[in-house]
Amino acid sequence: MKRIKLTVAYDGTNYCGWQVQPNGITVQEVLNRALSELLKEEIHTVGASRTDAGVHARGNVAVFDTRARMPGDKIAFALNTRLPEDIRIQGSQEVSPEFHPRFTSTVKTYEYKILNRTFSDPTRRQDSMFWYGALDLEAMKEAAGYLPGTHDFKSFAAVQGAEGSTVRTIYGTRLWKEDDMIHFQIQGNGFLYHMVRIIAGTLLEAGKGSWPAERMQQILEARDRSQAGPTARACGLTLLEIQYPEWEPDFRNRKDDSFSLNEACV
Amino acid sequence: MKRIKLTVAYDGTNYCGWQVQPNGITVQEVLNRALSELLKEEIHTVGASRTDAGVHARGNVAVFDTRARMPGDKIAFALNTRLPEDIRIQGSQEVSPEFHPRFTSTVKTYEYKILNRTFSDPTRRQDSMFWYGALDLEAMKEAAGYLPGTHDFKSFAAVQGAEGSTVRTIYGTRLWKEDDMIHFQIQGNGFLYHMVRIIAGTLLEAGKGSWPAERMQQILEARDRSQAGPTARACGLTLLEIQYPEWEPDFRNRKDDSFSLNEACV
Repeated sequence: MKRIKLTVAYDGTNYCGWQVQPNGITVQEVLNRALSELLKEEIHTVGASRTDAGVHARGNVAVFDTRARMPGDKIAFALNTRLPEDIRIQGSQEVSPEFHPRFTSTVKTYEYKILNRTFSDPTRRQDSMFWYGALDLEAMKEAAGYLPGTHDFKSFAAVQGAEGSTVRTIYGTRLWKEDDMIHFQIQGNGFLYHMVRIIAGTLLEAGKGSWPAERMQQILEARDRSQAGPTARACGLTLLEIQYPEWEPDFRNRKDDSFSLNEACV
Repeated sequence: MKRIKLTVAYDGTNYCGWQVQPNGITVQEVLNRALSELLKEEIHTVGASRTDAGVHARGNVAVFDTRARMPGDKIAFALNTRLPEDIRIQGSQEVSPEFHPRFTSTVKTYEYKILNRTFSDPTRRQDSMFWYGALDLEAMKEAAGYLPGTHDFKSFAAVQGAEGSTVRTIYGTRLWKEDDMIHFQIQGNGFLYHMVRIIAGTLLEAGKGSWPAERMQQILEARDRSQAGPTARACGLTLLEIQYPEWEPDFRNRKDDSFSLNEACV
């Protein structure tokens, strides 16, 4: 038995998110099916980030156990031939049987894109949100400047996903405009449900001039979802990368002693 | 009666090209229908560039005549509410009744994008072609350097579209790589059927090292389609812009005395 780590990219447009669910097709479901066919045994992957419907990924991570003899690094190539073109494995490798994609400390990087021009651009509609009005980029940068550090991000979490600690550490943010596309990148040790989209929606309010940038501080302190801006559209969000400690897994985030790949144990 | 010029952007993925045809839905057909509903009269647009199935546009141009009283610059906004999200008007204006999108000298700019990395990226699959192997960017630039100037581009034209002169003037090309995306832009006074895609396919051969860059000169001189590279995939091509003379239409390219907006007169 060996454990395999996959780096998974997908266009989330046509999926009901990552995680298997009864109401529609998901990335995980398509991946499980393709892997099971390829390796001729029933495979259940565990994903690092359960992205929402419509959210994209360049580097989500999925892990599974297999008895198949195919070398870990060859699985990516073989699996890609069995996947639809909106899902592509970016790499595969054998990892320690102790590696769990969610119990290991990670650094996650997300990008939110806002197309800011008079008319929307059909060729860029699926991986950005569109805003036609003027946006003050400096105000957005200033507002984003309140995010880095260890804070309670309860104001930036969807109410329905709010069990457990809402404290997270943001390592940094970047915000820039290239032609008419505003790119907002945020890196942290973890993100609450809808957190990046609510942050994007709040930065947009700062950019429109509805709120002064300093309001970001008050929103953080309020620990109240209703104080933050609206949840920005899913299609603008891409999970860029999940970095794992290179040499030794760091188990500070472990919740139990088992390393079983069971979704239920999270 | 007034003549209106539209700047039209579209994601060509789901269309059988620009021009109305019996076998599938086209951009022109959708546009004609939405305009006819909006202006409550039967509208027939004439396009500047009849892009192929799967080709995208940020700035194609369409012109039509109407008796409607709606001001020219308002039509873009009203029309966009009636169009599917993969077609978006970027601007509308009233033009001289003598303006014809194809009989006026224009400068057209196309872009061909090649995603060059080990694994394809699902979020960028619809507006670029994918190539996994190593590409020599300098060789591609050198090969593209043979294109500017007035040449007979017969070698770079699909055989089925080869009536009339095959001489065109290329004003310039640009080729650069940004992260893992190679951008090739080409500007000229006109392009033959499949010309940019055949050029892209030929540059790819130079990049792979199959052909020395100098072969571009021999291909041009051969005036023989079979000497050039394969036609690169439609999805990598975007019509970026069509520039018209700003002050006075230049009628050197006129083929007759009429300015009737009739597709058949071309």
